[in-house]
Amino acid sequence: MDRSGALSRLRIVLSHPSHPGNVGAVARAMKNMGLADLALVAPRHFPDPDAVAMAAGGSDLLGKTRVSSTLEAALADCVLAVGFTARKREISHPAQSLREIAPEIVAAAAAARSRVALVFGNETSGLSNEELARCQRLVAIPANPAYPSLNLAAAVQIACYELALAADAFSAPRGGAGSAATIEDLEGLFAHLEESAIASGFLDPKKPGRFMERMRRLFARTGVEREEVKLLRGLLAAFDKPKRRK
Amino acid sequence: MDRSGALSRLRIVLSHPSHPGNVGAVARAMKNMGLADLALVAPRHFPDPDAVAMAAGGSDLLGKTRVSSTLEAALADCVLAVGFTARKREISHPAQSLREIAPEIVAAAAAARSRVALVFGNETSGLSNEELARCQRLVAIPANPAYPSLNLAAAVQIACYELALAADAFSAPRGGAGSAATIEDLEGLFAHLEESAIASGFLDPKKPGRFMERMRRLFARTGVEREEVKLLRGLLAAFDKPKRRK
Repeated sequence: MDRSGALSRLRIVLSHPSHPGNVGAVARAMKNMGLADLALVAPRHFPDPDAVAMAAGGSDLLGKTRVSSTLEAALADCVLAVGFTARKREISHPAQSLREIAPEIVAAAAAARSRVALVFGNETSGLSNEELARCQRLVAIPANPAYPSLNLAAAVQIACYELALAADAFSAPRGGAGSAATIEDLEGLFAHLEESAIASGFLDPKKPGRFMERMRRLFARTGVEREEVKLLRGLLAAFDKPKRRK
Repeated sequence: MDRSGALSRLRIVLSHPSHPGNVGAVARAMKNMGLADLALVAPRHFPDPDAVAMAAGGSDLLGKTRVSSTLEAALADCVLAVGFTARKREISHPAQSLREIAPEIVAAAAAARSRVALVFGNETSGLSNEELARCQRLVAIPANPAYPSLNLAAAVQIACYELALAADAFSAPRGGAGSAATIEDLEGLFAHLEESAIASGFLDPKKPGRFMERMRRLFARTGVEREEVKLLRGLLAAFDKPKRRK
């Protein structure tokens, strides 16, 4: 299964979006997460300079965005349509949580020759019951019951993020992760530290107390790198020197 | 450990935000996910009507937002500061992925009497090296290497969502999830379906082929509810009737 290629077969469908700024912010959110297929159903304003402004580096997606007058047309070539809803409903299939359903969506997109659609409704009213009925799955983003209404682009951002992670599309960038210190490095550091502590007069070798135990615990928690051990031993060596001059 | 109370001890710190609309969108994202403590370091414009407009139902957070001139002041009462960065760095502690570190952040907030800060930098330049050095952990949100720069409010939205899930703060709303059909319900349906199919002349009992096997597979996939079994059997009964009249 080609999970990483799955993102290219995911389509974001915005039905009746009112604010072109939101359409642009959606394009940016999609590009940030590696999606590229945006479809609009009966947008109030499109194209629009506000959309371009909010899309920032994702504005190329707006040039390829398809506009249709009905949801049916936007879903015509899709094998699965997933509707996003915040409302509880009496009559409908149950909404699953986004994280729960993300692997299924990615698997469907990876297996499909065609598209999988993620469908979002109007900013104020959400998806209508008629629109929800055209979706095979309903998804809810867990949210504060006191104020569960996410901004449209924020909801799309979370959806794209979850699906990118489920597709294992990107690894987090890592900063200057050096190689971890070995036990030998660490024991060398502890021995040096103890010697220096004694030489400085801070530690009485006849009454050492729990000083070294505490130091070991401290360094065990932090995950020390080899370069850091070198730095610390260099520092200790510098501390040692004046004592030798006496 | 009080995981659900952890959200109330998470502080979002925005350092040098340029656009008040982003500050408002951050307040909304926080409220949607159950966070309430927003701190601003040297914002270009605050308070501002654009912030209120974008905050929508989260505008109450803006009235309680504290503004300071230095990051140090915003972090003074925090036990842990987590810096968000998209950049790879030569010199720094390594960035962990957000999902990887979320349980640790929630555990720290749940255990602390004080606050845990999530620190976000300026929209254009991110956190400076000096600001990153004040954070004990660095976090990256996995993103498209071709365009990894998320909108500020979008990054905060993802962070709050991950932490709300790690804190198990909200369950997804469920739609009209009826009770699942029992095996007995299903066997009753299959028996009825077979009889009706035979009575209709569609199915030849001497050459049944794989019809029932396929029907069983179809219903096994869908997860049928008790009410749906009743509906289907009602429908079958209606199909049966004209045959009996013959």
